[in-house]
Amino acid sequence: MTELRHRGTTENDLYQQSEDKGSENEGKAEGVSESETKPDTGLPEVPVPADDTPEVLNKALSGLSSRWKNWWVRGILTLAMISFFFIIIYLGPMVLMLIVLCVQIKCFQEIIHIGYSVYHSYHLPWFRTLSWYFLLCVNYFFYGETVTDYFFNLVQREEPLRILSKYHRLISFALYLTGFCMFVLSLVKKHYRLQFYMLSPKKTWEGFIGGFFSTVVFGILLSYVMAGYSFFVCPVEFNSDHNSFEVDCVPSDLFQLQDYALPATLESLTGWPTVRLYPFQIHSISLSAFASLMGPFGGFFASGFKRAFKIKDFANTIPGHGGIMDRFDCQYLMATFVNVYIASFIRGPNPAKVVQQLLALRLDQQLNIFNSLKSHLIERGLLEDVA
Amino acid sequence: MTELRHRGTTENDLYQQSEDKGSENEGKAEGVSESETKPDTGLPEVPVPADDTPEVLNKALSGLSSRWKNWWVRGILTLAMISFFFIIIYLGPMVLMLIVLCVQIKCFQEIIHIGYSVYHSYHLPWFRTLSWYFLLCVNYFFYGETVTDYFFNLVQREEPLRILSKYHRLISFALYLTGFCMFVLSLVKKHYRLQFYMLSPKKTWEGFIGGFFSTVVFGILLSYVMAGYSFFVCPVEFNSDHNSFEVDCVPSDLFQLQDYALPATLESLTGWPTVRLYPFQIHSISLSAFASLMGPFGGFFASGFKRAFKIKDFANTIPGHGGIMDRFDCQYLMATFVNVYIASFIRGPNPAKVVQQLLALRLDQQLNIFNSLKSHLIERGLLEDVA
Repeated sequence: MTELRHRGTTENDLYQQSEDKGSENEGKAEGVSESETKPDTGLPEVPVPADDTPEVLNKALSGLSSRWKNWWVRGILTLAMISFFFIIIYLGPMVLMLIVLCVQIKCFQEIIHIGYSVYHSYHLPWFRTLSWYFLLCVNYFFYGETVTDYFFNLVQREEPLRILSKYHRLISFALYLTGFCMFVLSLVKKHYRLQFYMLSPKKTWEGFIGGFFSTVVFGILLSYVMAGYSFFVCPVEFNSDHNSFEVDCVPSDLFQLQDYALPATLESLTGWPTVRLYPFQIHSISLSAFASLMGPFGGFFASGFKRAFKIKDFANTIPGHGGIMDRFDCQYLMATFVNVYIASFIRGPNPAKVVQQLLALRLDQQLNIFNSLKSHLIERGLLEDVA
Repeated sequence: MTELRHRGTTENDLYQQSEDKGSENEGKAEGVSESETKPDTGLPEVPVPADDTPEVLNKALSGLSSRWKNWWVRGILTLAMISFFFIIIYLGPMVLMLIVLCVQIKCFQEIIHIGYSVYHSYHLPWFRTLSWYFLLCVNYFFYGETVTDYFFNLVQREEPLRILSKYHRLISFALYLTGFCMFVLSLVKKHYRLQFYMLSPKKTWEGFIGGFFSTVVFGILLSYVMAGYSFFVCPVEFNSDHNSFEVDCVPSDLFQLQDYALPATLESLTGWPTVRLYPFQIHSISLSAFASLMGPFGGFFASGFKRAFKIKDFANTIPGHGGIMDRFDCQYLMATFVNVYIASFIRGPNPAKVVQQLLALRLDQQLNIFNSLKSHLIERGLLEDVA
């Protein structure tokens, strides 16, 4: 952003620079390493890319003036690109998709190269590694759904593909989260290493481990209490008859007490062969574990942010506590995890939604589906074959 | 990012600053306006937020030392917050959702306030307006789907809600795009105003309007030619029997020639009462119009980016043209639009996907859906009632 202000007065430099490009390149072939040795002026320095005109073109056009040479190079490459894309289209949609992927990767590489050159001097660690890693995450996230939609049969048949598709949301989240934690660690590493070793590391680890176990135990107990009230376990629904929102239902299996056999070691300790639990209590262990193991990274990130802007708190909304953001820094990570966890492990397919989509189809498509559903249900013995 | 480097050596300032907070606040009550008058040192300045401790607490704790006063303020506010959240939970899920929304808005406000204070001096125009606008876009985009899922009946009954839900993706895209164009315009306004008025404005507008019409005409012609080949109009599908990808189908209605009645004025001009067109050719007009009217903003944005980093091209991958990114700057906007356009106006619900979801349900749920589908189809006269 600094640049926008500085450029204001010297807008024409850009165009002058491009005119001088040929001669500058020779001296600046290794711009990146050169900028390291210069004293840091606070302004990012992007090296001028080396001239990659093929030797054969340079030779063929050596008799021409710089302007005409450039015109010919541009024209020839334009024709080459157009021909290349015709060939791609001729080779069919799979090759086209592959080229789109390549173009995307190459564009990304060009942009992070610029970013790297600019932020290089600030020693942002793992900048390039993390950038490429996030490109991978984004591609998995976006291609994942499309590939499943298009090639459902192929995906179902190949076990690794099936897993990648079934837990698509969870895996995407785990990938992003890993990148996020690595980014935070790379930023705060120096600072927290100091804090961990200087300020009684034993106490910190005891607190961390103690916090983990107490969160898990508290979660199991609290979810036992809360699972007993339909207020906490039923979805809000809009009731058209009463024209109001209602919270009332037969609790799902998740909130019905069940007997669980205890492992032998625990059985001998307690004397109980089984315990009665709500299945949700098992899930509460995952949620508590995430809250105490991963939640802190939201706080670390907020600390890094605040340190970068030289502020102690985000605001002063709550006296003695700081801003609302200071109290909710971990909640954003946790809320996302809960959403992904519910979608991946708890919520099954929604029959009401399937019916909506079914009724949105053309009548002949509905009839087709009706007939295949009929034969499927006859096969499974749920319907009698009257034909 | 600059800060991270500068902080390295003076990490303890932050903690010292927080100790001095009480005394600093008095002199810095209007930190924002003060930072404007200071000479710009290149370092962002975030004002220390004013102390908002309620007067009644300040009075009651006036006899205590600063440390103990802070401890009591913090303790009292902690209890107040916990009680507040119990009340929220008691008031039910709708109030809870509302509070989550409020917390989100307040957190966002705290963060953009910091951003605004830092970038204020760089005169980034419309910073706060655009920030709030993007919060609106994000909320519409994310809440849109959830609300439709939960309150399907309510949404279907209210016409404005139904439209907002049906064209959810298109409206989200339009909102984001408007924000993006405003951002680009705000950045390049000065520069382009110069360009438009200094460099023969008549020619620019002629080129722009001429480009628009020639793109539309070329699009109509090209789509007529391409719609004739199944290679271009059929989806790629994985054929399990041949174990290969195939491009072969009966073209959809979109790619079947139809007779269109010409408007009276065009009929008297051409003498034809009707024209034979592929319906896709009508869609091609929207796509061409977007490409020539909105596409350039992708290029403007790329120009702004390059100017900010003082570079002429993204890279030198294609001699005479610059980087791949220089050739594809508009394509990212266009590709997104095509995706949204297809989802909103062309692709109907996918029967194969509905069947997949249907078969993923429990058998009793499948049987339920079978029976309601049966009575629905009998009602419509597509099935005979044999019972």
